[in-house]
Amino acid sequence: MTATANAVNVLSAEKLLDHWQGHRRLTRRMIEAFPEDKLFSFSVGGMRPFSEFVMEFLKMAEPIAKGVATGQWVNREDLGTPKTKAELLRLWDQDTVAINALWPTIPAHRFAEVDKAFGQWEGTGINTILYAIDNEIHHRGQGYAYLRALGIEPPQFYDRS
Amino acid sequence: MTATANAVNVLSAEKLLDHWQGHRRLTRRMIEAFPEDKLFSFSVGGMRPFSEFVMEFLKMAEPIAKGVATGQWVNREDLGTPKTKAELLRLWDQDTVAINALWPTIPAHRFAEVDKAFGQWEGTGINTILYAIDNEIHHRGQGYAYLRALGIEPPQFYDRS
Repeated sequence: MTATANAVNVLSAEKLLDHWQGHRRLTRRMIEAFPEDKLFSFSVGGMRPFSEFVMEFLKMAEPIAKGVATGQWVNREDLGTPKTKAELLRLWDQDTVAINALWPTIPAHRFAEVDKAFGQWEGTGINTILYAIDNEIHHRGQGYAYLRALGIEPPQFYDRS
Repeated sequence: MTATANAVNVLSAEKLLDHWQGHRRLTRRMIEAFPEDKLFSFSVGGMRPFSEFVMEFLKMAEPIAKGVATGQWVNREDLGTPKTKAELLRLWDQDTVAINALWPTIPAHRFAEVDKAFGQWEGTGINTILYAIDNEIHHRGQGYAYLRALGIEPPQFYDRS
């Protein structure tokens, strides 16, 4: 008999970072795929434009990596939406580097430890990180619907390179 | 100094199943939220109706749990789309039970082992499972755009109960 699954660990921190950054690379291609004006204005069904989803991701990703690493939750609520795609991509790339730098400083116990993210959302480090990733996939999926409604072929979902 | 993160395991098989079934419960609420006719017909930008996304999830989830557990990849390509929401929900609930039953039979080594899912997609067990979850979040996000376009308030994304 081989060991059964329930107690086994299935994901290392290193692979989780790869997984997250793979999704962030796809989101970056989505930002690039939007025509500049539509990025900041177009939506379906009264939802926010894709630029505002991206701002939400920026307010979660690096601050969550930092919060899980340090226990300090930095609120970026006053981070204004840039006026150009280039500036949005610059913020994106800046956080890609920052998350990679923060990652190996996360103390091992913090993934399982319960904390209150941004002083509000109680959860383990791993659950808070998974929430950030899932939220990005979720709103990015809505962005795919925006691009389709605009007649634009979105990037391939399975390509995380 | 506490241990840093890269090598640490961050997710157990048991928690991954909780996470997946939480997402599947949200997707179930999405199926319920669609008016019956719109579930099988409505879309944005020429995409598939939400029922077809659900069929895709059904063709991936339980077969992937089984494939990772056993190495046998059962193709459900000929599973036709039901004609009613009730039947779609019945298939959904059937697989919820089946996935829960399969899960503890997954041999521990299979999460890290590379296999060719459905004879086509090479990846570790964990990556194949994460792909199924991410794909569900992605297309469900598109379903949120459909509901918004229909003027229907979708279920809360954060509620996985």
